Amino acid sequence: MSTKATFYHAGCPVCVAAEQMVAEGLDRSKFDVEVVHLGLHISRIAEAERVGVRSVPALVIGGQPFHINHGADLAALKA
Amino acid sequence: MSTKATFYHAGCPVCVAAEQMVAEGLDRSKFDVEVVHLGLHISRIAEAERVGVRSVPALVIGGQPFHINHGADLAALKA
Repeated sequence: MSTKATFYHAGCPVCVAAEQMVAEGLDRSKFDVEVVHLGLHISRIAEAERVGVRSVPALVIGGQPFHINHGADLAALKA
Repeated sequence: MSTKATFYHAGCPVCVAAEQMVAEGLDRSKFDVEVVHLGLHISRIAEAERVGVRSVPALVIGGQPFHINHGADLAALKA
């Protein structure tokens, strides 16, 4: 059984580095990785907030949010 | 060729969660993962600082620091 891992980002340089190194570095035999660009898919911001995501880039693994460095607050994406 | 990935932590609950989910989730066929407890190995704080680590937990991949959530500032470990 794969664990769901969702990488939320907004296309910022900090996000791209985290995606390339951390999200793409996850073991695909253990994780089902989905990458979501919240700037393009604003409708999914509420879903990210529900699991505790406050800023991007963030990696949610098994429902737990891990904020990786800091690109932008979610609030900034809604403006 | 494996890429070196170093996970720096200080044993804090935030660190343990990040280690279990992110550091242990890395693909071991791509990464040579080392876990360093800076509270127990204070002599390695300088090495972490040199690559830009400011707080733990942090994952350094290929020389790039990724701060994951926030457990403690490095300065607090030196006190």
